[in-house]
Amino acid sequence: MTPEENAHTLAEAAHAASTALARAGTLAKNAALEGMAEALLQSQSEILAANAEDLRAAEGAGMSRAMLDRLALDPKRVAAMAAAVREVAALPDPVGEVTEVRQRPSGITVERVRIPLGTILMIYEARPNATAEAAALCVKSGNAAILRGGKEALRSNTAIAQALGAGLAKAGLPAAAAQLVPSADRELLQALLALDSLIDLCIPRGGPALIEFVRAHAKMPVVRHAQGVCHVYVHADAELEMAARIAVNAKAQRPGVCNAAECLLVDRDIADRALPVLGRALHEAKVELRCDPLSLAVLERAGVPAKEARPEDFGAEFLDLVMAVRVVKDFEGALEHIARYGTGHTEAIVTSDYAAARRFAREVVASGVMVNASTRLNDGGVLGLGAEIGISTSRLHAYGPMGLRELTTQKSVVLGDGQVRS
Amino acid sequence: MTPEENAHTLAEAAHAASTALARAGTLAKNAALEGMAEALLQSQSEILAANAEDLRAAEGAGMSRAMLDRLALDPKRVAAMAAAVREVAALPDPVGEVTEVRQRPSGITVERVRIPLGTILMIYEARPNATAEAAALCVKSGNAAILRGGKEALRSNTAIAQALGAGLAKAGLPAAAAQLVPSADRELLQALLALDSLIDLCIPRGGPALIEFVRAHAKMPVVRHAQGVCHVYVHADAELEMAARIAVNAKAQRPGVCNAAECLLVDRDIADRALPVLGRALHEAKVELRCDPLSLAVLERAGVPAKEARPEDFGAEFLDLVMAVRVVKDFEGALEHIARYGTGHTEAIVTSDYAAARRFAREVVASGVMVNASTRLNDGGVLGLGAEIGISTSRLHAYGPMGLRELTTQKSVVLGDGQVRS
Repeated sequence: MTPEENAHTLAEAAHAASTALARAGTLAKNAALEGMAEALLQSQSEILAANAEDLRAAEGAGMSRAMLDRLALDPKRVAAMAAAVREVAALPDPVGEVTEVRQRPSGITVERVRIPLGTILMIYEARPNATAEAAALCVKSGNAAILRGGKEALRSNTAIAQALGAGLAKAGLPAAAAQLVPSADRELLQALLALDSLIDLCIPRGGPALIEFVRAHAKMPVVRHAQGVCHVYVHADAELEMAARIAVNAKAQRPGVCNAAECLLVDRDIADRALPVLGRALHEAKVELRCDPLSLAVLERAGVPAKEARPEDFGAEFLDLVMAVRVVKDFEGALEHIARYGTGHTEAIVTSDYAAARRFAREVVASGVMVNASTRLNDGGVLGLGAEIGISTSRLHAYGPMGLRELTTQKSVVLGDGQVRS
Repeated sequence: MTPEENAHTLAEAAHAASTALARAGTLAKNAALEGMAEALLQSQSEILAANAEDLRAAEGAGMSRAMLDRLALDPKRVAAMAAAVREVAALPDPVGEVTEVRQRPSGITVERVRIPLGTILMIYEARPNATAEAAALCVKSGNAAILRGGKEALRSNTAIAQALGAGLAKAGLPAAAAQLVPSADRELLQALLALDSLIDLCIPRGGPALIEFVRAHAKMPVVRHAQGVCHVYVHADAELEMAARIAVNAKAQRPGVCNAAECLLVDRDIADRALPVLGRALHEAKVELRCDPLSLAVLERAGVPAKEARPEDFGAEFLDLVMAVRVVKDFEGALEHIARYGTGHTEAIVTSDYAAARRFAREVVASGVMVNASTRLNDGGVLGLGAEIGISTSRLHAYGPMGLRELTTQKSVVLGDGQVRS
């Protein structure tokens, strides 16, 4: 079969499964999720054997230590995967939720009812547990999932998807509700991206090359989970101890994720006093500081190790213990820097000033705007939105953490007694 | 300048204007809308002169009577355009609305706040009043609008856009908040559709050729306002008088619009009794009936004029006083027909049976599902959603009538006291 034929077969099956899933009640979907979790545990040895092969190949290809760790599974991680699927079962079902009821003058009742989006193409990279998580969130929200993981994890993902399909089928739902794309080649992905009559939404999570490939080829709407170039802005009226705590947490608590901060902005009025405190705290957390000339001069005077930034360090997503540092002339300067270099992901201000807090919250365009809180808090779980499939950086209707609700749309159900339009 | 350079200049200006618009308060936006309405009235003679030229050219090119009527403006229509802009000013501002507030265990307050989408590329066809309506809805919802009308209305649209820009500028908002694409050539449109870093959403309203062109070239998400192939299904337990009233209204009240019905489905159990009543009522409303063999036989026996349907009549959007008619074996048969031929726009059932009403409302996937009501009621104004920019048939987060709210997204504002992630 050609890649086009393969893609069509896969998407047709998903599309057909989506109808069954959309009609499945909460109990049936929860039973399927329970079956999927159970099947993951029962298939542990097959999954671990497949993962061992993936790891051998990746090591042979010279994959980095950190990436190997993300790829690796063990019994604890398989158990965590099953537990994550069960957690999704425990979340409230968004489908069928009536978000609004209106009685209209003509006598009709208008209900706004949540329904699934349909079929979702999820594209992601290394971690194999993403396969189970994405499948669980799609099944719970009544969507068929087409799962396209990274080529390094293909054997692991195949074993996981096999278990998930068996769990679905045992519970009486179509196994095609969660299908793995059986090869990581770009031709097949490209063919899938053309099928906008069968696939309703594409959610790519990954690096710039992947996102660009999807941008170039997708015919259906794309909700990107792309770069987070996030800033911590220390305002002239900031409490310095709080600012240091937030900057360190935002940068160093988990530097490899999208809501980690990449750049520290400090008001010129307090640069002399604030930068030594902030710089020392970041240096102690092993963060390399890449500074504009003004901040570099202050840090050098204070004896804090720092180096000069290259122009491309502003706007860079380091995903590492590296942080760009810049002195801004004032609040406006910070807003301008953020508008220019930020990616609309997460932005934070540290301030004790009421008006500055209020303006920052109102004017900054980002999926998460944090006042006196770490950028790392922009997360579905932390914010109380439930488990998430990722954090959307597309300024579309679903922006920020995408949970079950963001995997649905709404229809209007009109209940009448013969009303017509006059 | 090349089309690419032209497109870039236009989109850059819109993008810059979108920031100013997003920060503008409700009063400033309402003042701008008032200014736009005022400017339309003051420019009446220029608009009518431009429209007269468009009409002359269109007549010369052999445009149909019906299309010429849609293109034509007169003082009453210009006044209606200004009134429509004022009506949008009177609607509640969606931007800044806090849709949810959560207090989280860590002590942070999480607000979900509506913000504009950014820059919207609106593509539409003949009617020049769409230019003013779309601009007004975008301005009120804080979005910059790039307006691309049909080539037949280019002179009229240019005069209208000039007035709108003057009104905006007079109120202190950038004129680029509502720009007309200054030519109807496809190269320029194609260049605009590639600018996904500057344009956040494309909303095409129009025929299959336009939609297909957008599908092929758009890099940003597209919310289609495409065909409505809508059905009226007369269930075995329908009240026949109500069914006839609804079928006639759905088909004939305004046959040229997307929520008009194109196909009548009748349960086999009542075909002998129901079809003569329905057929006679539709015939009296001057509707041509194109029938499957079963319904044709019944109508011929009853002496109701009808002809045989061609296969392509099922799934066709006639936009005219023509209706396909088919007998279905039962409820399941109707659901299957709708799933196969419907476009997810609007579907109606007429029934006195509780279980059938409930199942139809739950299982039919369409932006509007009508129980004992005409398909023509799926309209933002009728449903109480406010003025609309069109009816989305993309199964995306905005599905169905798109009002001001559907032109916004939400961000999370987190108010903390130094909280970090542990």
